Amino acid sequence: MYSFKNDYSEGCHPSILDKLVETNLVQDLGYAEDRYTKLAKEILREEMKSPAAEIYFVSGGTQSNLLVLSSLLLPHQAVISAHTGHIYANETGAIEATGHKVIPVQTTDGKLTASAVEQVVRQHGLRPHVVQPKVVYISNSTEIGTIYTKQELSDLSQCCKKNDLYLFVDGARLGHALTAHNNDLTLADLAALVDVFYIGGTKNGALLGEAIVFSQETLANYFDYNLKQRGALLAKGRIVGIQFLCLFTDHLYFDLARHANDMAYRIQQALQEAGYAFSGESTTNQLFPILPKSLIEKLQKQFDFYVWAEVDEYQSIIRLITSWATDEAAVDQFIHAIKE
Amino acid sequence: MYSFKNDYSEGCHPSILDKLVETNLVQDLGYAEDRYTKLAKEILREEMKSPAAEIYFVSGGTQSNLLVLSSLLLPHQAVISAHTGHIYANETGAIEATGHKVIPVQTTDGKLTASAVEQVVRQHGLRPHVVQPKVVYISNSTEIGTIYTKQELSDLSQCCKKNDLYLFVDGARLGHALTAHNNDLTLADLAALVDVFYIGGTKNGALLGEAIVFSQETLANYFDYNLKQRGALLAKGRIVGIQFLCLFTDHLYFDLARHANDMAYRIQQALQEAGYAFSGESTTNQLFPILPKSLIEKLQKQFDFYVWAEVDEYQSIIRLITSWATDEAAVDQFIHAIKE
Amino acid sequence: MYSFKNDYSEGCHPSILDKLVETNLVQDLGYAEDRYTKLAKEILREEMKSPAAEIYFVSGGTQSNLLVLSSLLLPHQAVISAHTGHIYANETGAIEATGHKVIPVQTTDGKLTASAVEQVVRQHGLRPHVVQPKVVYISNSTEIGTIYTKQELSDLSQCCKKNDLYLFVDGARLGHALTAHNNDLTLADLAALVDVFYIGGTKNGALLGEAIVFSQETLANYFDYNLKQRGALLAKGRIVGIQFLCLFTDHLYFDLARHANDMAYRIQQALQEAGYAFSGESTTNQLFPILPKSLIEKLQKQFDFYVWAEVDEYQSIIRLITSWATDEAAVDQFIHAIKE
Amino acid sequence: MYSFKNDYSEGCHPSILDKLVETNLVQDLGYAEDRYTKLAKEILREEMKSPAAEIYFVSGGTQSNLLVLSSLLLPHQAVISAHTGHIYANETGAIEATGHKVIPVQTTDGKLTASAVEQVVRQHGLRPHVVQPKVVYISNSTEIGTIYTKQELSDLSQCCKKNDLYLFVDGARLGHALTAHNNDLTLADLAALVDVFYIGGTKNGALLGEAIVFSQETLANYFDYNLKQRGALLAKGRIVGIQFLCLFTDHLYFDLARHANDMAYRIQQALQEAGYAFSGESTTNQLFPILPKSLIEKLQKQFDFYVWAEVDEYQSIIRLITSWATDEAAVDQFIHAIKE
Repeated sequence: MYSFKNDYSEGCHPSILDKLVETNLVQDLGYAEDRYTKLAKEILREEMKSPAAEIYFVSGGTQSNLLVLSSLLLPHQAVISAHTGHIYANETGAIEATGHKVIPVQTTDGKLTASAVEQVVRQHGLRPHVVQPKVVYISNSTEIGTIYTKQELSDLSQCCKKNDLYLFVDGARLGHALTAHNNDLTLADLAALVDVFYIGGTKNGALLGEAIVFSQETLANYFDYNLKQRGALLAKGRIVGIQFLCLFTDHLYFDLARHANDMAYRIQQALQEAGYAFSGESTTNQLFPILPKSLIEKLQKQFDFYVWAEVDEYQSIIRLITSWATDEAAVDQFIHAIKE
Repeated sequence: MYSFKNDYSEGCHPSILDKLVETNLVQDLGYAEDRYTKLAKEILREEMKSPAAEIYFVSGGTQSNLLVLSSLLLPHQAVISAHTGHIYANETGAIEATGHKVIPVQTTDGKLTASAVEQVVRQHGLRPHVVQPKVVYISNSTEIGTIYTKQELSDLSQCCKKNDLYLFVDGARLGHALTAHNNDLTLADLAALVDVFYIGGTKNGALLGEAIVFSQETLANYFDYNLKQRGALLAKGRIVGIQFLCLFTDHLYFDLARHANDMAYRIQQALQEAGYAFSGESTTNQLFPILPKSLIEKLQKQFDFYVWAEVDEYQSIIRLITSWATDEAAVDQFIHAIKE
Repeated sequence: MYSFKNDYSEGCHPSILDKLVETNLVQDLGYAEDRYTKLAKEILREEMKSPAAEIYFVSGGTQSNLLVLSSLLLPHQAVISAHTGHIYANETGAIEATGHKVIPVQTTDGKLTASAVEQVVRQHGLRPHVVQPKVVYISNSTEIGTIYTKQELSDLSQCCKKNDLYLFVDGARLGHALTAHNNDLTLADLAALVDVFYIGGTKNGALLGEAIVFSQETLANYFDYNLKQRGALLAKGRIVGIQFLCLFTDHLYFDLARHANDMAYRIQQALQEAGYAFSGESTTNQLFPILPKSLIEKLQKQFDFYVWAEVDEYQSIIRLITSWATDEAAVDQFIHAIKE
Repeated sequence: MYSFKNDYSEGCHPSILDKLVETNLVQDLGYAEDRYTKLAKEILREEMKSPAAEIYFVSGGTQSNLLVLSSLLLPHQAVISAHTGHIYANETGAIEATGHKVIPVQTTDGKLTASAVEQVVRQHGLRPHVVQPKVVYISNSTEIGTIYTKQELSDLSQCCKKNDLYLFVDGARLGHALTAHNNDLTLADLAALVDVFYIGGTKNGALLGEAIVFSQETLANYFDYNLKQRGALLAKGRIVGIQFLCLFTDHLYFDLARHANDMAYRIQQALQEAGYAFSGESTTNQLFPILPKSLIEKLQKQFDFYVWAEVDEYQSIIRLITSWATDEAAVDQFIHAIKE
C-alpha cells in the first residue's frame, strides 16, 4: 500500500541524518545560539539577498503562524485570510486562541487579491465596534495547490503598504510554489515584497522545522520572548539549524520540491489524458481530481489517499499529495492503475 | 573548552540516530498515529504498570507545562509552584500567557510540602475575589537538583486529593531524579500518585521530546485539540516516538541519567574534599558549589559554566551540569583543576 | 433634531430614578449580595417559572456575551453565529479575545436554523485539526429586527441537545422580541428551551444592565469568579438589581418594549403606504427602509439616524430605531415628513 | 447595625441623582460621545492642568486595571506590584487572564519603592527566559490605607523613566489619598509624574465609575478598541460622565473623601487613646486596629466590619472603612462602644 496522503509520511532526506550523525557529539550552545544555526541563517540571508533579515527556526507550521500573528497584532487587530487558509480552516482556532479574529474571504482558487483586501478594510471602518484588520495572510503554495505570480504578490504588497497592513506568507509548501513550472517568484522577491514569511522544512524533506523570516528587523524586536513564552524555543535549536544548513546546500531544498512537483505533474497528465477533471488548477504537489467512486475504490486497494469531498452519487474529489520522497515506481503504478 | 553549562549541549544518544536512519524511508501516518509512537506508548505504559495511562509526545518542557496547565485549569483557576519552579521563574510568563496565575511559594530546597499547599488553599478562600488554586506543580528533580521522596510525594498526593487539586510533576529531569542514590520512587509510583507528569527526553539523551503522561484518562479528554491549537502537534510525530522507543529499550533512559548523576557525584565529592560548600543539597546532575572568585576565573579558562550568583566580594555560586554525554576525562580534568 | 439613531439615547424610565432616590442611603452589602438584587432575582425566577435558574446582573451586552461564552467554552471549542450576529460583526473581536473562534453562517434574515447548525457540525469533524462547535449563539430580536418563533426555537433547542451543543440567546432586545405582534414565545419558554440567555435592560429603559439567566444551575458553577476576573462584578451591584426590580414590577419591561414596537410599526406602515420597500422583515423596533437619497437628505434636516448602506446611485438603506422613550409627536412629525 | 465594612454600602451623593433626574430625557449620543461626558473631561483636564490628557470613563476598578495593563503591555511583558496590590491579591487573576504576569514585591506598608523596582528589573535580565517588567503598578491610597508622598512618587517616576517602564496608579481611593492630612500631592502632580492613573468614583460617592487618565496621548492610541473588546464601553456612557461632572463641581469629590478621612481619624484617635495598636499606619479611610477578641464580639453586636486576620489566641485585626456617607452619629456610637 503506497501512500499519497501527505508530504510528511517519511523521515527526512538522508543527507540531513548524515549531518546529524557527523555533528552529534560536538558541544555547542543551546537555544539556537549554536554555530550551525548561525551558519544556516547566513546562507539563507545570502540566498534571499537580504542581509538584514531576522530568521528564527521553529518546529512546525501552525506554530509559525500563531507565533508570527500573535507578535504582529495588537489585541484589537485581526488578520485577513482566504476561507481555505490554513489558519482559518485547519488550525483548531490557534490564532483565535491568541486572542485575534481571522477574517475569512471567500475565494475559488485559494488566493487573496488586493481588491478583496481593500473591501475587507472598507467593511471595518466602524471604529471601535469592529476589529482593525492589520495583517494579510496568504499561503504559497495555497492549501489547494495554486501559486501566486510576482504580479499578484506585488499588487498585494502595494495594497498592504497603502493600507498600513503587514503581509505574511505561510510557506509551509514554499518550495513547491517556487519550483512550479508557472512560477516567476524567487526567495529574494519574497524578502523584498513581504513583511514576514516562512520557509517550510517539514513538508519538504526535514524531520521538522520551518524558517521564519522577518524582512524588517524591527518587526522581530521581541520575537525571542514570544518563542520562549509559547513553548517554541527548542533547547537543542541546532537540530533545526542543521537541517536548514543541509537543505540550503547545493539547492537541495529546491531539488526536493521540484521532484514532488514533477511526480504530481505526471499523475495530473495521466488523469487528464484519461479524461478526468480536477477541482482547482494546482501546479504543485497537491492534486484534487474528481474520480468515479468505483475507480476510487479500486485505487484504495493499492494506494492510500484522502477522499476529500463527495461531488454527487457517482463521483468524489480525492486529494493526492506527492513529496520529495515519492517513489517514481509508485507513480508509475498509480498511472497504470488509472489507465487500466 | 569543555562545557558544564547544561544537559543539552550535544545531539542525542547514538542509538537514536541509528533508529532514525533505519526507519527513515518507511511510510507511516502523521500526527503521532504511526507505529513507532504507538509502540513507544505501549512500552511506557508497561514500564509504569499503568495500562490506562494516556501519553502524548511533545517537543519541550515549557511546551509541556503550558499544554498541561492550560488544559487542566478553568479560567479562574491557578497553579501553585515553588518560587524556584521553572513555570514561575524561567518560562517568560508562559502559564500567565494562557491566562492563569502561578501562585509562588517560598522554599529553601525547591520543594513544595503538603503543609505549604494547605496554607495557600486557606489563603484563597475569599471567593470570588481571588483565584481558585487547582493544580500543584512540582519538579522532580527540582531546578536546584533536589528530589522528592516517596513519602513526600504521597503526602502531596493525599493533600491534593483532600483539597480537590490536581498534582502535576515536571519531569524535565525525571531520569536524574529516579536514578539519584537517595531516590525511592519509580515510574509506577509516579503514575499511581500523580495526575499528570512528563518524562523529559531533551535533557536526557534525545534530540528533543517529552512524554506527557495522564494517569487518569478523563483528564486528557480534549488534549489532542489543545496540542494542535498550541502548535505542538508535530506532523512527523514519529521522530519523538522513535526516540522514546530507543530510550525505553534496555533501560537506556535510566542508564543515561545515572551516568550524569555519577559524573556530578564525582565532582561533588572532589569539591567537598577540597573544602568547598554548596548552595543546596543536590543529589542529581546539577551542582551549585560556592567557590572563590579566583578559582572560578581559573576554571573558566578550561571550562564553560554559569556563574549563578554572587555570595560576597570573594565568592560566587556557580552552576555545573553534567549529562548523559559528559566525558569522564573532562570530569577528571575538572577535578584535577580543583585540586591544584 | 429628533434622534432615531438607537434605543439608548436617553437616560432611563423615571420610575427607576425614583427607586434609586428612595433606596439611596440604605446601607447594604456590595457585589450584588444586597436585598434589591436578591428580590429582583426572585421576581425574575417567578416570571420565568424557573425556580432553579441562576441569574447574574451585568452592565452591558458585549460584556454579557464574552462572559457567558468564555465560561461555556473550553479552549478548543467555538461558537456558531449568524454572520450578522453581534458577536461576529460588532464586538471588536471580544469573543476571539477570550480565545474562541466564532463560526459565521450566512443568512438572509439574521436567524440561524437547525439545519444550518447541523451543517456546521458536520464540517467540523476532522478532529483535532478543527475547532469543536459547542455553543449556538442567536439574538432575539436579531440585529436586523426579526424574531424567532416558538417552533424555530424548539427546533434549535432539539438540534443542540442532539449534537451536545449549548444554546445561548443574546437578548439585548429581548423585550422587543417578546412583544412583537407575531411573537409566540414567553420568558418561561426561553428558560425551558435555552441553556443561557440574557434579558437586556440597557436598550429597554434601564440606565445600564442585563440579566444573564442560566437555566441549568451547573453551567453557572464558577460564573461568579468569571464576573470578577473580567471586571464585570459591580461593587454597587444594587444599582442594576434595583433597575430590574422596577422593570419587572407591573410588566413595565414589556410595556416599554411594546411602546417601542408600536412606534416602529406606525413608521413602517407609513413608509409602506408611501410605497417604500424594506431591507428585511422586521417586526420590532428596528427598521431598515430603502429610501431615495433625496428623501434621506430631507429627513436628515429634522431627524438623526444611520444611513446603513448604499443600494444604488439613487437609493440607500437607512436604520431607524425606536425605543421606550420615543416621543409619539416625533413619530407623527416623521410620518408627516414622509408623506409630504 | 451600622456597617463599616466598605465604602460602597450606599448609593451615591444625592447631587448625582438630582443631575440624573434633570438630564434624564435629553437625547444624546451613546458610547461616551455625549455632551456631559465631554464636559466632565474638560473639567478634569483643567483640574489636572493637563490639556492633552486622554480620559476614559469605565465602571469599576478591576476593569480599569485590566484595561490599562492589557493595553500597555506586550505579550511578553509584566507588571510589578506590591504583594498587597489589588491586582495581585484581589482581582481573581484578572491581569493574568489577559496574559500577563504580575511580579509581586513584599512590602510592609503596601508601597513600592524605586529601589525595589530596580531590584526586580535586575532580576529579570535573562532574556528571553524571563518576562520583561514594563509597568510599575501602585495604589494611592494603598490597600492598607497608606499614601505616597510627592518625593516618593517623584523617585518612582524617575526610576521608571530611567528603566523604560510605565508608571500606573490605581486610584480607586485616590480622593482619600489626596485629602489625607499628610498628603502633599495634587491631581496635577499625578498627571505630571505618572503615565496612567485613574480617579475612583465608586468608592467616593458615585453609583459607579472610574476616570482613567492617560498623561501621554499616544499611550491611549487604541484604548477605545480595547474598551469595546473587553465589554467596558457603556452604551449610555453619559451616566458616568454625569457623575464625574457632579463630583468635580465645587470640589465635591475632595469634600466627600475628606469626610471619610475625618471619620476614620476620629475612630483612630479614640482607639489610640484607649491603648490599642494598629496593623499599619493608615492616614486615610481604612483602619486596621488590633483588638481583643472579646471587644470584637461586643462591637459586632452593633457594627458590621471585617475581621481581617487573627493575631494570636486573644487578639485579631479588624478592618474598618469609612466613606463619604458615614454617619457622624454612628462614629460617635462606635467610639462610645470602645470607651465603655
